[in-house]
Amino acid sequence: MNVALFGAGRIGKIHAANLARQPGISLKYVVDISPEATAELARQYGAQTAVSESVLGDSSVKAVVIASSTDTHADLIVRSAGAGKAIFCEKPVDLDLERARKCADAVSKAGITCMIGFNRRFDPTFAALKKRLDSGEIGEPEMLIITSRDPGAPPVSYIKGSGGIFKDMLIHDFDMFRFILGEEAETVYAAGSCLTDPAIAEAGDIDSTVVSIRTRQGKLCQINTSRRAVYGYDQRFEVLGSQGMLQAGNVRPTEVASYTSKAVSTDVPEAFFLERYSAAYATEMAQFFGAVRESGPVPITVEDGVKALELADAASRSWAEKKIITL
Amino acid sequence: MNVALFGAGRIGKIHAANLARQPGISLKYVVDISPEATAELARQYGAQTAVSESVLGDSSVKAVVIASSTDTHADLIVRSAGAGKAIFCEKPVDLDLERARKCADAVSKAGITCMIGFNRRFDPTFAALKKRLDSGEIGEPEMLIITSRDPGAPPVSYIKGSGGIFKDMLIHDFDMFRFILGEEAETVYAAGSCLTDPAIAEAGDIDSTVVSIRTRQGKLCQINTSRRAVYGYDQRFEVLGSQGMLQAGNVRPTEVASYTSKAVSTDVPEAFFLERYSAAYATEMAQFFGAVRESGPVPITVEDGVKALELADAASRSWAEKKIITL
Amino acid sequence: MNVALFGAGRIGKIHAANLARQPGISLKYVVDISPEATAELARQYGAQTAVSESVLGDSSVKAVVIASSTDTHADLIVRSAGAGKAIFCEKPVDLDLERARKCADAVSKAGITCMIGFNRRFDPTFAALKKRLDSGEIGEPEMLIITSRDPGAPPVSYIKGSGGIFKDMLIHDFDMFRFILGEEAETVYAAGSCLTDPAIAEAGDIDSTVVSIRTRQGKLCQINTSRRAVYGYDQRFEVLGSQGMLQAGNVRPTEVASYTSKAVSTDVPEAFFLERYSAAYATEMAQFFGAVRESGPVPITVEDGVKALELADAASRSWAEKKIITL
Amino acid sequence: MNVALFGAGRIGKIHAANLARQPGISLKYVVDISPEATAELARQYGAQTAVSESVLGDSSVKAVVIASSTDTHADLIVRSAGAGKAIFCEKPVDLDLERARKCADAVSKAGITCMIGFNRRFDPTFAALKKRLDSGEIGEPEMLIITSRDPGAPPVSYIKGSGGIFKDMLIHDFDMFRFILGEEAETVYAAGSCLTDPAIAEAGDIDSTVVSIRTRQGKLCQINTSRRAVYGYDQRFEVLGSQGMLQAGNVRPTEVASYTSKAVSTDVPEAFFLERYSAAYATEMAQFFGAVRESGPVPITVEDGVKALELADAASRSWAEKKIITL
Repeated sequence: MNVALFGAGRIGKIHAANLARQPGISLKYVVDISPEATAELARQYGAQTAVSESVLGDSSVKAVVIASSTDTHADLIVRSAGAGKAIFCEKPVDLDLERARKCADAVSKAGITCMIGFNRRFDPTFAALKKRLDSGEIGEPEMLIITSRDPGAPPVSYIKGSGGIFKDMLIHDFDMFRFILGEEAETVYAAGSCLTDPAIAEAGDIDSTVVSIRTRQGKLCQINTSRRAVYGYDQRFEVLGSQGMLQAGNVRPTEVASYTSKAVSTDVPEAFFLERYSAAYATEMAQFFGAVRESGPVPITVEDGVKALELADAASRSWAEKKIITL
Repeated sequence: MNVALFGAGRIGKIHAANLARQPGISLKYVVDISPEATAELARQYGAQTAVSESVLGDSSVKAVVIASSTDTHADLIVRSAGAGKAIFCEKPVDLDLERARKCADAVSKAGITCMIGFNRRFDPTFAALKKRLDSGEIGEPEMLIITSRDPGAPPVSYIKGSGGIFKDMLIHDFDMFRFILGEEAETVYAAGSCLTDPAIAEAGDIDSTVVSIRTRQGKLCQINTSRRAVYGYDQRFEVLGSQGMLQAGNVRPTEVASYTSKAVSTDVPEAFFLERYSAAYATEMAQFFGAVRESGPVPITVEDGVKALELADAASRSWAEKKIITL
Repeated sequence: MNVALFGAGRIGKIHAANLARQPGISLKYVVDISPEATAELARQYGAQTAVSESVLGDSSVKAVVIASSTDTHADLIVRSAGAGKAIFCEKPVDLDLERARKCADAVSKAGITCMIGFNRRFDPTFAALKKRLDSGEIGEPEMLIITSRDPGAPPVSYIKGSGGIFKDMLIHDFDMFRFILGEEAETVYAAGSCLTDPAIAEAGDIDSTVVSIRTRQGKLCQINTSRRAVYGYDQRFEVLGSQGMLQAGNVRPTEVASYTSKAVSTDVPEAFFLERYSAAYATEMAQFFGAVRESGPVPITVEDGVKALELADAASRSWAEKKIITL
Repeated sequence: MNVALFGAGRIGKIHAANLARQPGISLKYVVDISPEATAELARQYGAQTAVSESVLGDSSVKAVVIASSTDTHADLIVRSAGAGKAIFCEKPVDLDLERARKCADAVSKAGITCMIGFNRRFDPTFAALKKRLDSGEIGEPEMLIITSRDPGAPPVSYIKGSGGIFKDMLIHDFDMFRFILGEEAETVYAAGSCLTDPAIAEAGDIDSTVVSIRTRQGKLCQINTSRRAVYGYDQRFEVLGSQGMLQAGNVRPTEVASYTSKAVSTDVPEAFFLERYSAAYATEMAQFFGAVRESGPVPITVEDGVKALELADAASRSWAEKKIITL
């Protein structure tokens, strides 16, 4: 099966490497605005460089992987759907809710396979937590606590175009809320502050947030997020249920413990998402091509992408307008 | 120094035992509405049974410990202050904010020593976290996460007179928020549900809550609380700071770990507050009598009790009226 | 019940404090070679100072607690047994095996209650491990690993009169081997080195040892011991069984965890035996007086004391003579 | 660089997969006594099936990877060395010490690169421990505790030809002792029992061992080994040093923790060596080809293989003859 990859940046390279491990998959095209990056990635995997028109017009291409910048996602989804390609698209679908919904419509009309890359669902620890929760190990879930902190803030230039912390960073957490609890939000409340760098506030954004969600069935979710955790990438989930609690903890590079006269020390968590989610990236790619091959359902639909964006949008408004948002 | 104890119930017995260990302190009177409980506790510690009038009229009594039911606290504080006694009073000061403020006024006018028994501040683990935070170990604190879950709900009859979950249970968490961050709340948001027992909802209360606080300086606090954690008494704090994170974890009865073909298992946390906070109860009593002896300041004033109640009141209103409360 | 205490040093003070908490027990006499220490301890607990003759001649004294220096144990045991007193004696019975056996004979002939203070058996974590092992939780035990390390070496002057590391320090570990596995040794092998302080070697002793024991039923035990673990008092047990493993870990003063850019850190273990085994000291005293009161069996007999000494003796010879000792 | 692989079994497949990831390396031949296994592995990696004569006679083959059965190692090493090939050989060099020494001679005379596959040295956790130890983090090492337990015993048919537990299983631990402490043994003592399956005893072997080693510099090492740990593959190291302790713990498949009314549970360790050491296998192959490419030294020489075998031999004799072996 011939595949085209849009985007030759950091995340595009990860997908290219995982594509190369899928049996029966051949990377035919790489498309990116940087000629150098495109050429290098294409060469590395024996693919050709191309522009989107020719890729979408090549009927031998059955699937596209969209890992280009966020502002190109919607257009590529709509055009790829129109061309009948199966689509794997990085999160988010778009920063604008209306445009995201149009993508969902386009996918629906075209009847093609489309999966959104919320990679965290495929992390071995988080997936195991979800499976055990669904097996009834702790009874009925009642409360979900999400801790989601990056090791450090990206450049302010990035933040300016990011859509704000709720759409850029918490979009993952909103998806995980829906994934873990399997319910939809009724109310969303978000508060936040700019505590790590005044330049972020000047850019109209915040770096520290607390979000509370209540579902239609009355379940409760709290999310705490920071752009800066100096000890590493902090990604944890905790579900309190009627018969117990499940926690998903961080992963450490090694299991060395050091005992000195002052403290017992272990490794800090993995540095950032490339290290933390390397297995997750591999698994999501395998699941996408598995779904394409068997014409089966994908684990994360474009509607899931829209739902996460709705929550991010609601949280943004809750914070900006200082009110509780009812969905 | 002669001391009188009001309350011969569960918490009164703990205080009596800790009183007995204070050097130079003699328990002279025990006062309680149950003649049997009063007599037994008095006998055990060589004290006399009495009624409040005679206790407060005995000029040899220098201090009183109030561990009777919540609805008696305000009256006993005002009368004890009027009689010039040093006062240790269990939390809360009162369920009603106005009455609590009147207690603070009475204490202030009388110029006597008055300490409120927010025992958690004296837990070795929490006290160590606070000390290390103040030493600058993790830089400037930015975010506080409080997990506070009881092993099981009290009888609904108790809940009916409890003032609601925010005044009965979260009052401790509100005090710990103030203690740890050392700042005052600007906004409070609370949501909640009744998830463990419909009878609690019928009594007009909830059993599961999520609270978000933003301080005047922009720091963020999230509290999650449940009346039921089947694995034990779950009391944790986590502070994210500019240079790191401090966590205060649960305490286990033993350090046995069991490895079987299915899992690696350790003990569940201590069962409930009597086990978890036994050291804290001893320390708070020592600190109270130390302050009385040296006419020094108490670590928790009646104003602290009022402030915690203000937060509980705000949270109650936020939940009931579905709005964000600005203090 | 009137009790006499021999020894007003560090360990004598601990026993005095625990004696004071036993219901129905009155400390009548304190005996020690230091008049000041004797007087102070006697005064603190309302006892009299005395010499051993008068104590043993006072028929109102039903029990003695021997916490004086090791070289006085055997004599006091024999004389107290002769006087019909119940005896609690600190470990070891004696440094000389023959003298220890004579104590056992004296106790046996007198038919009195005699308990040896191997305090570690009463540590909550170790006692829980033993109980769970006996319940069959990990099937049949096969291998026992004992880690036993002091935070720092005592003065060389102490070491010179200690009987050597095997009788002074590992005597506890040999008792715990017998307690946990419930079997007797067939062969003992010990090796060692002086690694922490050359003065210990000059005194004819070592500070680091590894011991292997094989029981008559073929079970295996390894003990590793050091006079110096700079991170604190390291006392761990691990039992591998046919259906799992049980570990007994160290206890930490607090449950604070610190996350910085370099490491995740927790507390070092409790500093030394007074902190680590405070609960164990209280429990052993309660069990001794419980046995005396009910004329029941004691959990650790003088024969147990002899058996532990036999193992220490065998290990000493194995190390000194560089051979495997068969018992 | 063309490479030949001897052995198409379990371990041969792992090496083939890692070979395929080395840049500039081409697997030209697969040699195995099973035609089916050979053909399948050759086909999977685009290699040819061959017999050893033609492989060693092909001058385009620069390196061989020996992963065939132990009894073929020595012959293949000697012949490959004679043919001037660089050699990667699975442990052990041979079960017979004299034959192993002849391999070392052959390698030395031929002046070729030869690395022995003691994979554990490359485990990220163990390698990090070694690096930190060498950096002086805990001062001078004094004592090493090795825990090495398999999840279950292999078939007795395998055990019969294994050379016994010391040469088959502890050979790894002996290599790790040398790797971590960087010293040579002076005395070795080994005891053992057959506790898991009487058939192992009937085959003349044991399944549970305790080994003590004292180095020429007086450092101490204890190894405990079992053929059966029902909770998984248990591989731990602990080094006590003059200024602290370093521990290398097991790795868990996920970081999920479950809290129920009975226990707090986490995952059991990885199931067995293929899971536990997958990263180590990849790293050792990369290091071997790195050394070949740069004509540099290999991290584990054939002399290291001989030394580990000497220790296994000494331990076997210590156990069989019930005596302490001085090397």
